[in-house]
Amino acid sequence: MSDQNTPYLKNTWYVAALSTELDKDLLSRVLLDTKIVFYRKEDGTPVALLDRCPHRFAPLSMGKQCGNDVVCPYHGLAFNSEGNCTSNPHGNKRIPTKAKVPSFPLMEKHGFIWIWMGDEVADENQLPDYTTLDTGHDNAIAYTYMKWPCHYELIIDNVMDLSHVDHLHGEIITTRGQLSPQIPKLEENAGQLAASWEWKQTPPMLIFNDFLPEPGKEASHRVTVTWAKPANIQLSIGCSQGNQPITFESEESVSQYDLHVCTPESENSTHYFFVTRRNHHVEDAEYNQIKIQNMHAAFELEDGPILNAVEEAMETPDFLSLDPVLISSDAAPVRVRRTLKALIEEEHKTKLTLAS
Amino acid sequence: MSDQNTPYLKNTWYVAALSTELDKDLLSRVLLDTKIVFYRKEDGTPVALLDRCPHRFAPLSMGKQCGNDVVCPYHGLAFNSEGNCTSNPHGNKRIPTKAKVPSFPLMEKHGFIWIWMGDEVADENQLPDYTTLDTGHDNAIAYTYMKWPCHYELIIDNVMDLSHVDHLHGEIITTRGQLSPQIPKLEENAGQLAASWEWKQTPPMLIFNDFLPEPGKEASHRVTVTWAKPANIQLSIGCSQGNQPITFESEESVSQYDLHVCTPESENSTHYFFVTRRNHHVEDAEYNQIKIQNMHAAFELEDGPILNAVEEAMETPDFLSLDPVLISSDAAPVRVRRTLKALIEEEHKTKLTLAS
Amino acid sequence: MSDQNTPYLKNTWYVAALSTELDKDLLSRVLLDTKIVFYRKEDGTPVALLDRCPHRFAPLSMGKQCGNDVVCPYHGLAFNSEGNCTSNPHGNKRIPTKAKVPSFPLMEKHGFIWIWMGDEVADENQLPDYTTLDTGHDNAIAYTYMKWPCHYELIIDNVMDLSHVDHLHGEIITTRGQLSPQIPKLEENAGQLAASWEWKQTPPMLIFNDFLPEPGKEASHRVTVTWAKPANIQLSIGCSQGNQPITFESEESVSQYDLHVCTPESENSTHYFFVTRRNHHVEDAEYNQIKIQNMHAAFELEDGPILNAVEEAMETPDFLSLDPVLISSDAAPVRVRRTLKALIEEEHKTKLTLAS
Repeated sequence: MSDQNTPYLKNTWYVAALSTELDKDLLSRVLLDTKIVFYRKEDGTPVALLDRCPHRFAPLSMGKQCGNDVVCPYHGLAFNSEGNCTSNPHGNKRIPTKAKVPSFPLMEKHGFIWIWMGDEVADENQLPDYTTLDTGHDNAIAYTYMKWPCHYELIIDNVMDLSHVDHLHGEIITTRGQLSPQIPKLEENAGQLAASWEWKQTPPMLIFNDFLPEPGKEASHRVTVTWAKPANIQLSIGCSQGNQPITFESEESVSQYDLHVCTPESENSTHYFFVTRRNHHVEDAEYNQIKIQNMHAAFELEDGPILNAVEEAMETPDFLSLDPVLISSDAAPVRVRRTLKALIEEEHKTKLTLAS
Repeated sequence: MSDQNTPYLKNTWYVAALSTELDKDLLSRVLLDTKIVFYRKEDGTPVALLDRCPHRFAPLSMGKQCGNDVVCPYHGLAFNSEGNCTSNPHGNKRIPTKAKVPSFPLMEKHGFIWIWMGDEVADENQLPDYTTLDTGHDNAIAYTYMKWPCHYELIIDNVMDLSHVDHLHGEIITTRGQLSPQIPKLEENAGQLAASWEWKQTPPMLIFNDFLPEPGKEASHRVTVTWAKPANIQLSIGCSQGNQPITFESEESVSQYDLHVCTPESENSTHYFFVTRRNHHVEDAEYNQIKIQNMHAAFELEDGPILNAVEEAMETPDFLSLDPVLISSDAAPVRVRRTLKALIEEEHKTKLTLAS
Repeated sequence: MSDQNTPYLKNTWYVAALSTELDKDLLSRVLLDTKIVFYRKEDGTPVALLDRCPHRFAPLSMGKQCGNDVVCPYHGLAFNSEGNCTSNPHGNKRIPTKAKVPSFPLMEKHGFIWIWMGDEVADENQLPDYTTLDTGHDNAIAYTYMKWPCHYELIIDNVMDLSHVDHLHGEIITTRGQLSPQIPKLEENAGQLAASWEWKQTPPMLIFNDFLPEPGKEASHRVTVTWAKPANIQLSIGCSQGNQPITFESEESVSQYDLHVCTPESENSTHYFFVTRRNHHVEDAEYNQIKIQNMHAAFELEDGPILNAVEEAMETPDFLSLDPVLISSDAAPVRVRRTLKALIEEEHKTKLTLAS
């Protein structure tokens, strides 16, 4: 797919993989309709190359790593981490000038491999500050990844509009009907959009109840979802009793700090990455497993099937073109869609200007 | 799909479901490329709504029925049997003016739910008279439904041209080669087209033989297939001995009265509904099961695979555009195709006139 | 698909089937996007007809053979080996003038059924001389067929460029790295293109080693692949010790004579036919089985998956349009692609000239 027609924002950071996914094997993954091979150099530095040999177009990921290079499975051409051909075993063994594979800038941070797929120079400062993930007990953080067959913006919608929680999800994260009637508070700051809901409920949310001073008694709750381009949503949720502040840092609140990242594989498939860190019950490694299992169960059995059905009904990725009936809880996801669309259009314009 | 481009006749009655298919659960079914949710109100009245919430386009059929309303699974909006939103649990709970779902007129008759999908006012008088189905022993009538992956007009062709019987089907309904040489008699009446074949055979058709006065001896046979728009074929078949009249009402003939209805799901998939009533051996409920099993076996193992292969070979739904070699037995199905095409073109013209 | 737009060379011989595939049953096979039914007349002559009844377009291959005719399964029309309708069992039984099915010239040679699908008169002299296949011990020749889901030119590339052998394949046909550094010698003769490689290796190729005078000791090797239009590749491979000539006919060399034929089913599927004759160990019938098993294993587990991945990466059948990086070993396959493309363009031009 030519860059000219890409429906994605390109000059930005997407999560390409969990850090733990890059081990001894070559990893092949399609991101933004582009097939990429990932591996680590001998010093551990991650590498991303277009997964296509420029000779006969075999996937390099079907070959093997040899030192810091990757060797094509079909005719044995080797390429280094910058994508330059380092060996041609055929005929006079001369390396053709054109024998290069595109490589992509990577950054390893917060347990993720981030990739920059645009033509502009990769800008490390564009990544939002998620350092909260980096400190705390090792057993209080858990990662997961799943691929889901729907457009990534439907997953962004789903996380940015939490008013669906009491209608779609089960007992474990119910707000007892308290969240829906709240109109979320929106805040825009440096290109990021945050939506917050606050409410009281009795008993408190079941995921937090046991860790509160008075389980079963009324507690104040707050959840904030903060979108940053292109597809990062940081979700903070917690509760407290007795008017204590609800922040991840406060020992008086029971809170968690999550990051949802939706990287498009294609226009109807998404790599969904997720990390959750909590400020309570931090030593229990088994509890990490339970958190991740619950995330999978909720998404795969409840949100995911609805999103697939919605995508089928829409017949276009452009939700707003369908003249939907909007309600108060749509403010945040709709604003995210408009912002992202504007950023993509701006990028296309810049490209045209540079080209002319 | 916009109405302007629909390849189907719209202002007419199609069978949407067997009456027995509408029970306690929501039923989702695609008819004429349109996804519809069906349910019964508390008083039993059947309801048909577009199966798409106007908010975020989730299928209402994934939600639940609540009294006479259906509740969206994603954010809990409720809609009544006319498609009006009756509840919005979010924010100030105001119901948006646009929050409406299209509803479709239904009619329950002869054990079927009939649906009217056009823009004109539903006209109950347009349904042909099939009241023969309504009287008789409860064990002498049997219904079935199957979905088949081919264009509905191929199934109409198949039933309107019975000359294939001795070539494609097995012993149970063989005419011993007597039917093919007969040129069917065509009659057109009030928009309905009937084709009849008459012949004698020894032994009689096996499905009737045991119920005749002299099993194994020559009998006169008659079969009539009568098409009515859009996709209803009433098939009467029977036989008698000793020059007795062959009618469903006559006690001297062994006869059955069937209705085949082919409702398009899409351009290459059909909902095939079938009912058969007989005037003999009326009390045997197990015989009903056998009749239905035989219908399935004949269609699924013999007609159906041929129709699928024909559709694949045709590469277009427009049979007549392929310049087929026609023979005498094609008169009825070809006339049905021409009539239906003219009706659809007329409907498109009317729509254009109204629009201008 | 109309002839005007066909991407294939038409006035030429393709293998349609192994001789042994035509037995008592009708065989249906799609060649060059065209569905064809094959059978043998009572005297054994093979017949090829368009697999589509001109009446209602049912596949004749779903019917049955009756003497020298084939009978349509749907309404019983019969067609002879020239495609003329010989029986219509309906109405007055008159045979409609238009009731004809296209038939295709066949030639049975070297254990294959060859088909001519173009409009020009079939020219038996166009088939290259493969008579080497016809003489020798019955247990020294083995045939196989497989269908593979990729464009046929990718398989031609693969056989015409043997420099992939040491990179993609395993121990059994390794040249110990000796083949890749050789620049193949190209020879063009009467429209056929041959590429040859010569080298010495120790130990000799394992498929030949045991049959040499001094197993394990150095041997001279030669392989030649000779392409003839449209998709025939004759591969000769062998080795000898002590400067003996390497030819199939020479008793001093251990050699085999193979034919690879790739007939397009469609633009992304190929009928791959293969025959191998050897000049050594000729009486062992079980060894034939092993040769065929090895051919399947190498292609299905090694070449085939790479070709599928290459096709997916290319997104077009036109390899040269993708500006590939070419190396010395690409000379032969690239010249074949250019020759075949020129022949197809010439055929289209001739057709246009004739039409105007």
